[in-house]
Amino acid sequence: MTLTRLLKHSLLALAIGTVSHSAIANEPIQPIEPLKNVNLALAELGKKLYFDPRLSKSGFISCNSCHNLSMGGTDNIKTSIGHGWAQGPINSPTVLNSSLNVAQFWDGRAADLKEQAGGPIANPAEMGFTHVLAVDVIQSIPGYVREFRLVFGDEEVNIDKITDAIAEFENTLVTPNARFDQWLLGDQDAITPFEREGYELFKTSGCVACHNGPAVGGNSFQKMGLIEPYQTNNPVEGRAAVTGKDADRFTFKVPTLRNVELTYPYFHDGEATTLTEATDIMGRLQLGRKFTDEENAKIVAFMKTLTGDQPQFLMPILPPSVDATPKPQPFD
Amino acid sequence: MTLTRLLKHSLLALAIGTVSHSAIANEPIQPIEPLKNVNLALAELGKKLYFDPRLSKSGFISCNSCHNLSMGGTDNIKTSIGHGWAQGPINSPTVLNSSLNVAQFWDGRAADLKEQAGGPIANPAEMGFTHVLAVDVIQSIPGYVREFRLVFGDEEVNIDKITDAIAEFENTLVTPNARFDQWLLGDQDAITPFEREGYELFKTSGCVACHNGPAVGGNSFQKMGLIEPYQTNNPVEGRAAVTGKDADRFTFKVPTLRNVELTYPYFHDGEATTLTEATDIMGRLQLGRKFTDEENAKIVAFMKTLTGDQPQFLMPILPPSVDATPKPQPFD
Repeated sequence: MTLTRLLKHSLLALAIGTVSHSAIANEPIQPIEPLKNVNLALAELGKKLYFDPRLSKSGFISCNSCHNLSMGGTDNIKTSIGHGWAQGPINSPTVLNSSLNVAQFWDGRAADLKEQAGGPIANPAEMGFTHVLAVDVIQSIPGYVREFRLVFGDEEVNIDKITDAIAEFENTLVTPNARFDQWLLGDQDAITPFEREGYELFKTSGCVACHNGPAVGGNSFQKMGLIEPYQTNNPVEGRAAVTGKDADRFTFKVPTLRNVELTYPYFHDGEATTLTEATDIMGRLQLGRKFTDEENAKIVAFMKTLTGDQPQFLMPILPPSVDATPKPQPFD
Repeated sequence: MTLTRLLKHSLLALAIGTVSHSAIANEPIQPIEPLKNVNLALAELGKKLYFDPRLSKSGFISCNSCHNLSMGGTDNIKTSIGHGWAQGPINSPTVLNSSLNVAQFWDGRAADLKEQAGGPIANPAEMGFTHVLAVDVIQSIPGYVREFRLVFGDEEVNIDKITDAIAEFENTLVTPNARFDQWLLGDQDAITPFEREGYELFKTSGCVACHNGPAVGGNSFQKMGLIEPYQTNNPVEGRAAVTGKDADRFTFKVPTLRNVELTYPYFHDGEATTLTEATDIMGRLQLGRKFTDEENAKIVAFMKTLTGDQPQFLMPILPPSVDATPKPQPFD
């Protein structure tokens, strides 16, 4: 945002205080709230761990490999690459605003970010390691041990503390101040009439039934292919794998549409390459509605107003391994 | 460095102006100089490209994957992982202070950083792409095209401009202010007597014959295994592959020892796991000298004083692909 725009926005926000609050209350989408109550030391430790490929067997894959914070918190690949170039079964969901999700993973099998963070470390097709070995590595690094003592009051490293720190860093990865949020907060010029029409279509055609709240999604599970079945070669079954219920087959967590311009390709199988394609498929399969090209373009234009301020931070410098640190095993 | 230490150092530097210069002149190692004359816009563009995995066929591997700026500008793996989990033939040299090298790559086959930067993009066992396809990808991204116009005055993207920008970013990756440099600049307390003895041994035993200058290496080619042959299963032949001369077999560029504490494992084959092991092997094979444990420890302690201030910068936010951008092909 330019300084002029920032100033204008700030002054507007001051000027229209109560108006903007009532405006927000009337919309099914709410602004992303800037983060409060961050444990900064814990988040800084978590940032290091998030970027540390030594949590993987190969020493090559970190959380950031597939949830890349330079690229909307995802890898922009259909399905992810894991240990030994394993082809992952599913599209990496964005880590941005993931603290707002009702649960983590596409099938919601982790209750929260902390529980999620342990998953990929021990998944043979992702980081390919074990929690025990990951803890051994971190515990062997004096720079980490000092930081654990500072943050937790003692120097014991365990997976609970590691995932706690990663989750706190991930809590900071919110993206406020999207143009749509500026509009929600009262700046009528923050989105164009065309984008505004897209938002109206988004509401009237029913997209908003699932994509609502501050994250414009992420807060419910829904069946993929409600009106028409979804055709895919991807074998993933969705929430049925968690609940064991046949009714939950092809049910997935509704993805957030925040920063959706950056989180291509789309759907759990990554098969929709563009927002235009994704919008068309969603309209037909979920709503039984064929959007015209113009309608589709308007909805896409609206969705692009959901790109917020990306987290900006110093690239972490990781504490070095020492002679006693277990070595990565990329090719074993 | 703590603020107290920083202040102390700054005041000392002011106080001892001419003294420190004469001290430097008498040593075979000179301080790393902070960078001057940076083209900031070019370097910022280069930073984005350095972190952009879309320069690889898979969309997964960037320059930073193997020259990771969170980890001393290397990957801390024996030999690197490339496209399709290819096992690279050689240890990734650090990108830190690489602008000071006489040439690039272990065998010096690239004259400078710009020429080097094009290599891995097109290497089937590294980023696995082609220059033509990489240019197509970058040219398709409006955010990049705007930045190319800003930096170069026109919006044509080509490999020459891409590598020019990456090289300018790499030029900024110097690590001044190591404790050893503080000592060179006149702070007698910046290194301990034990480390100082290590430095004296480093000089008197002949290490300094090859590891000298500001980068403590990087400025000459030398045979690996001068007194005794080096035993390795690694098939790389070194400079002979460039010159075609049999006399250049197992001749490699002398690696920099700057930040060597961070750039493990060591040697072109990455077979030396620790500095202790590397020092022992170097002593025997290059100098015909078996260091005692204490001598070895002193030299290692000295080498650890060569860790400088690591480059600190904001993680770049990459301009997103658009519908027309060619898609990554990780599994084809």
